[in-house]
Amino acid sequence: MPSVSEVIATLTGAAEQDPANVQPVVRTAGHLTGTTEVTLKAGRHTVVVDEPTALGGGDAAPGPVDYAVIALASCQAITYRFWAEKLGIALDDVEVKVEADIDLRGWLGLDASVRSGFSAVRIEVTPVGSESADRYQELADAVDGHCPVLDLFANATPVERKVAVGA
Amino acid sequence: MPSVSEVIATLTGAAEQDPANVQPVVRTAGHLTGTTEVTLKAGRHTVVVDEPTALGGGDAAPGPVDYAVIALASCQAITYRFWAEKLGIALDDVEVKVEADIDLRGWLGLDASVRSGFSAVRIEVTPVGSESADRYQELADAVDGHCPVLDLFANATPVERKVAVGA
Repeated sequence: MPSVSEVIATLTGAAEQDPANVQPVVRTAGHLTGTTEVTLKAGRHTVVVDEPTALGGGDAAPGPVDYAVIALASCQAITYRFWAEKLGIALDDVEVKVEADIDLRGWLGLDASVRSGFSAVRIEVTPVGSESADRYQELADAVDGHCPVLDLFANATPVERKVAVGA
Repeated sequence: MPSVSEVIATLTGAAEQDPANVQPVVRTAGHLTGTTEVTLKAGRHTVVVDEPTALGGGDAAPGPVDYAVIALASCQAITYRFWAEKLGIALDDVEVKVEADIDLRGWLGLDASVRSGFSAVRIEVTPVGSESADRYQELADAVDGHCPVLDLFANATPVERKVAVGA
């Protein structure tokens, strides 16, 4: 397994040669495998999603909004790892907590003034290592400017939808 | 396990009594457990996230951006289930595919004009059942107006960040 610094060098070289080398398409596909259970493939991995019993599911796995905050928390942690390497900042571990507020009246269509998504998200990150608070703040600022899932949360993304009805 | 129609009736009644009854906080917490491996808790579930070897990981699990599209695909499928029940539309299954374009030059800080998140997302949904194409289109429109993770993708969400440096 290449080190993080080797990966950064390899990706940087590949991007300089042709940006298309570092422009993957992220894909998943799946279907309902229970009342609220969804089974999806992502590359060679299979992931199960379900709702808790209070939402009609079997609680076999986390729900969609849980996976959304898991995506954010893990993207923060991994981006700390990569940017610590880029900036030469020692980092032993990163602890990440994410909380997100949601009002299910939006999802259920009970109040048109309530958005269906999260109304607010809070991230708390604790970098663990021997560096000064100033250097970890420098790292945090770099991470927050480059974390893909933070960008997804904080900004609008164009989404194209197609319904294959009558197929 | 209550049926979907029972769940909708229960949640609707609870929301009418006090909106706070249907305003949960979605939480996750975890830390780096490998070079790019992150292990997180979400309720009683433990989820592992990792990067493929080309990104310095062990490919033990999907990566953060994979979980983001999994969150979207599964939220669509489950919202089809709930809104089919609300609208009285027969639905045997829903097949969902999501594709998302990303340019890793944003994450790596190689080009400040490239956003770190997805540049475009495409969803393809196939509702399976005995209803007309018109009714499934009606369902799709209702889902797209109420799907929490689609709202998260398509619109900006306020995110508050706190770094516990020197803790």
